[in-house]
Amino acid sequence: MNQKFDVIVIGAGISGLSTAMHVKEENPDLSIVVLDKQHTYGQGNTGKSAAGYRDIFKTEVNRKLASSSIEFFKSIQKSKGFDIGMHSSGYLFLVRDQSPMDLMLNDLSRITKIESVDKDEIRDSLNISYDLDPEQSKLMNLQGYDKGYLGKNCGIIEPELVADYYYKECVRRGIQFNFGVTVSGLSLVPVNPLDYPGEPFIWQDKKIGSIGTNKGTYQADEYIMAADVYTTGLLDKTGIDGHERPKKRQVFQITNEKIRSMLTREIHTNEGIMPFTILPSHGVFLRPAPKFHSMWIGVADDLARDFSFSEDPQAEHDFYENSIYQILTAYSGNFENAELTGSWAGYYSYNTADMTPNIFREVNLTVISGTSGSGIMKGDAIGRVASAVYSGKDKVKLYNNIEFNVADVGVNHRNVKMEQLIL
Amino acid sequence: MNQKFDVIVIGAGISGLSTAMHVKEENPDLSIVVLDKQHTYGQGNTGKSAAGYRDIFKTEVNRKLASSSIEFFKSIQKSKGFDIGMHSSGYLFLVRDQSPMDLMLNDLSRITKIESVDKDEIRDSLNISYDLDPEQSKLMNLQGYDKGYLGKNCGIIEPELVADYYYKECVRRGIQFNFGVTVSGLSLVPVNPLDYPGEPFIWQDKKIGSIGTNKGTYQADEYIMAADVYTTGLLDKTGIDGHERPKKRQVFQITNEKIRSMLTREIHTNEGIMPFTILPSHGVFLRPAPKFHSMWIGVADDLARDFSFSEDPQAEHDFYENSIYQILTAYSGNFENAELTGSWAGYYSYNTADMTPNIFREVNLTVISGTSGSGIMKGDAIGRVASAVYSGKDKVKLYNNIEFNVADVGVNHRNVKMEQLIL
Repeated sequence: MNQKFDVIVIGAGISGLSTAMHVKEENPDLSIVVLDKQHTYGQGNTGKSAAGYRDIFKTEVNRKLASSSIEFFKSIQKSKGFDIGMHSSGYLFLVRDQSPMDLMLNDLSRITKIESVDKDEIRDSLNISYDLDPEQSKLMNLQGYDKGYLGKNCGIIEPELVADYYYKECVRRGIQFNFGVTVSGLSLVPVNPLDYPGEPFIWQDKKIGSIGTNKGTYQADEYIMAADVYTTGLLDKTGIDGHERPKKRQVFQITNEKIRSMLTREIHTNEGIMPFTILPSHGVFLRPAPKFHSMWIGVADDLARDFSFSEDPQAEHDFYENSIYQILTAYSGNFENAELTGSWAGYYSYNTADMTPNIFREVNLTVISGTSGSGIMKGDAIGRVASAVYSGKDKVKLYNNIEFNVADVGVNHRNVKMEQLIL
Repeated sequence: MNQKFDVIVIGAGISGLSTAMHVKEENPDLSIVVLDKQHTYGQGNTGKSAAGYRDIFKTEVNRKLASSSIEFFKSIQKSKGFDIGMHSSGYLFLVRDQSPMDLMLNDLSRITKIESVDKDEIRDSLNISYDLDPEQSKLMNLQGYDKGYLGKNCGIIEPELVADYYYKECVRRGIQFNFGVTVSGLSLVPVNPLDYPGEPFIWQDKKIGSIGTNKGTYQADEYIMAADVYTTGLLDKTGIDGHERPKKRQVFQITNEKIRSMLTREIHTNEGIMPFTILPSHGVFLRPAPKFHSMWIGVADDLARDFSFSEDPQAEHDFYENSIYQILTAYSGNFENAELTGSWAGYYSYNTADMTPNIFREVNLTVISGTSGSGIMKGDAIGRVASAVYSGKDKVKLYNNIEFNVADVGVNHRNVKMEQLIL
């Protein structure tokens, strides 16, 4: 079987879906197919996300990508009446005075919607201690906190429903989806073949000629790679670097009576949901999951978390018990004997150079990589930037009229500093 | 066997040797050992280099690293009388008017020693055509040239002799060398062990506790990684990214009567050696190897050159014949029927984010990575910067009094644009 299209998009996660939709919107006559190895869309790392959204990032590039996407998502939820499970319940950072996080968030409070919250209010509402047992603090390198910063344009969202929205918009516009298609490789061919053995030679112009899959060969004029942690592996044979590496991430779903009562403790909002809360130490976060009467716990652990990759990563209960549970219970008695009712593991696809997405073009291939762990909350903007890169445009207008210079997130003229706010 | 030192340096190529020497110079009382899997120093990719040097780079960071090292190497060669095979025979770039290379080199001619050379002078001296056969040019995407740019503070050098110099200086200062030691991994341990199973936990401070090798365990307070293309693989288990990827590079040694006569055609120098010459198309370069009465030919091919890695890479004669030889003979009849008298292959260790070295610190580990394909010509400065990173200094004075901000080539506060001049 040899299938031909104008454009092939590899990957039906948020990045691929959003890009397909925006490319089609700009180029309605193109025949576009989206391929994914799973049985449907949004089943890779998109579906394993901790599913928060925030516009609080250290770099302007990331703030633009997130804030425009958040506005777009709000418009879906409100104007279009398409429920994507969005609740503006906030992000609450618990910090020590004069700590690097305090200084960074204080700076950011001048340009994003952040307000400070009194530590007593936080303790009274969520029962998270700001004064810890000194011996345990020393042993476990734990900090108490002097205040909270509440990001207001932040909250929780349901990635499967966001994927749903884009999928339906794609289908409505005539984009085709082929599921259960595993891409094995991209083949680089000469633009003007001479039919000599050993082509392409160094002096020949090259392009992606086709992709091999478990369902035969696919051909297109243009290819868009949105394959998350598979990007680098799929591109390596072409000599194009994917600029992303996988790191395992886990989410633990816990509950008990006290945790359930925490879930509804809104802070400075009327959402009836506690904020997505980042503890003062080691980056452990609490994500309210009211739909599941539970809390999701996670952490972007870096040192000692290896770069290995497996097709079916498992959450590690030892990691929960020895590393996470110890921290949770040091901060709040509410977590004592919490019931672990679920857990899952996936990968963040990191661009380790600056922890910011890379969207670039090489021959007839557009690559979107290194989008996690904030790819969903930036998903709409990523699709618009990728569509502009596909079309060879220098600038793009993101939703909400935000101007964006596409080369800033490319490879050759990249202009991004290290993102410090990785959760 | 369990050996203890103050500092262990992994890798006895130029980067490791230079770093060991500079660390010892700054800290004479430290016990330092340099480990290398080979039977002696400089036997990895250092010894496989095309062995040119230049101060011509797009970014100031790379110009500083190279120009200070070149001055230091000159001081070795001249003042100290230690022959490192340095000849200031120049780098000659052949360019089309208004091409990106023309514009870049014209800009650089204001800040480095570059002069332009008339195309007729080049043709008459080296017999490299500036007007090519139109049909072949079209088929092979070849350009003629309108002028040459000659980098004056550039030339050829012998990496084994540079390695020799550093090795002897290291030994003289009391640095120990253990050869035939293959490092298998670094182990990350808690700073304050509790002897619970599963350590280190997320809440424990961590450090590199030891390294495993084929000759037993080695321990030190501080570790310095200068292992070139092995860096990422060795670090992956610790969760620290090596920020480098290998790409295969090949050198082909060719000769015949006409090539031998080209070797002595100096251009604007008194070295009696032709310049290291970069052809106008596809990045193919000619490196005079007068000691071998030959020319070394190479190219930093990117697209279609995969990212695979093997322990014993081989030069590909098909690549020479189909890709390189075709280009050489299109530019000069001198290459017709050249005899291929040798060839070898190694790897460049690339930092693909900006093609510039990464020198950074994580816990008690200093990492030097992504130094090739210009690591030798920057070797002295790299050692000084790494020594400063090891000592926690913000600034370092390179040889020739050049001030350098070490964070510029680190990870967290990196300040480097993409280097465009990769050969």
